[in-house]
Amino acid sequence: VGRIGLVGLDGDDTLWHSERYFAEVQHRLTELLAPWADRTRLDERLVATERANLDVFGYGVKGFVLSMIETAIELSDGAVPASAIHRIIGWGKEMLAHPVELLDDVAEVVPELARRYRLVLVTKGDLFHQEAKIASSGLAEHFEGIEIVSEKAPEDYRRIARRYGVEPDRMVMVGNSLRSDVLPVAELGGRGVYVPYAVTWTLEHAELPEALADAVERIERLGQLPGVLARLD
Amino acid sequence: VGRIGLVGLDGDDTLWHSERYFAEVQHRLTELLAPWADRTRLDERLVATERANLDVFGYGVKGFVLSMIETAIELSDGAVPASAIHRIIGWGKEMLAHPVELLDDVAEVVPELARRYRLVLVTKGDLFHQEAKIASSGLAEHFEGIEIVSEKAPEDYRRIARRYGVEPDRMVMVGNSLRSDVLPVAELGGRGVYVPYAVTWTLEHAELPEALADAVERIERLGQLPGVLARLD
Repeated sequence: VGRIGLVGLDGDDTLWHSERYFAEVQHRLTELLAPWADRTRLDERLVATERANLDVFGYGVKGFVLSMIETAIELSDGAVPASAIHRIIGWGKEMLAHPVELLDDVAEVVPELARRYRLVLVTKGDLFHQEAKIASSGLAEHFEGIEIVSEKAPEDYRRIARRYGVEPDRMVMVGNSLRSDVLPVAELGGRGVYVPYAVTWTLEHAELPEALADAVERIERLGQLPGVLARLD
Repeated sequence: VGRIGLVGLDGDDTLWHSERYFAEVQHRLTELLAPWADRTRLDERLVATERANLDVFGYGVKGFVLSMIETAIELSDGAVPASAIHRIIGWGKEMLAHPVELLDDVAEVVPELARRYRLVLVTKGDLFHQEAKIASSGLAEHFEGIEIVSEKAPEDYRRIARRYGVEPDRMVMVGNSLRSDVLPVAELGGRGVYVPYAVTWTLEHAELPEALADAVERIERLGQLPGVLARLD
């Protein structure tokens, strides 16, 4: 038996693309609102609205759509036509129905890991959309469990570790967000493996505190994960 | 040891009010859209939109708000002003931030049941909003577990029963929806206790099939539940 008792994998932007659809839609919003605001002003206003709405909406596409609509109305001082708002809702539906696109290496690495470790998928956001993505990813069978959570704080990981009967310091969590995936598990005495994605949402930005640096590995793509885990184990 | 291995309780409109806030907001929408449609036409159009959107939005307030906005735009043929759409979003935030109001008997009955049975809260809808409501209900400590699901089909209850190590035919599920709470567990050989709420959402309507009638009890308020369970046990 190795040191690793449980390997957690994040979903969005760790196993499959997500943030780039948000970025693409935000780009379309920039064009739609060009008569009233330039890109910088829109980006600032949208992120401020998302931040203000996080406490009531939580994470996910539906909250993003509502924040886009609010931003459009505010920036245009109410002049944005209903047809434009209808288009924004249509983008949201497109995002929600978008086929899952796995990241590089994922289709090979996840089954390989499943043969060596107990795997759990730990993903944050909208329950309904996350379940749809997991089903369409074809990866569900490789995971002992799937945990869809509304927040990824240390206590959430502690609860998950307990559910699988593993001490948190024997858990390794792999993901593209330092703030949500890597640091909380490192804080519990476990290890984090950081796999940056090309785009990070402003509200997910975090710095790696020096005290936790030894508990965190950084890899550039998921294909490097089996080697890192073998070393940690 | 009695016959009952696990008692599941629904949340919305079984333990706390929910549907009446939807009805109240829908009434406001009727007034807002009065220039373009009468109540009957609005109700028909809104429920058709909700039904069409269920596959992409799932259940919950955010999807309801998006469906209201779509309906407003369609019924007004794009003439609804942005300020009206802003108001609709505001109603959604109000619903999401609304304090939890427990139904009659709940504050007394839930702790009483918790002393006799293993209790699990099984609630459907938006993860983020459901968690907020559970926290603010003050009831969480009485439940052995909380299961927030995106659908309440027999396989969902089978999975829950397995998680708690109970055969489905030893599960009793209590709720205000025949379709989501009562019938699926009865189909698995367990028992359903039906507690109707004053208002039922159109998409939750169902009939009780004669073949399952013996597996279903009907009570008028939660205060009658301990007696029914004692008899079934």
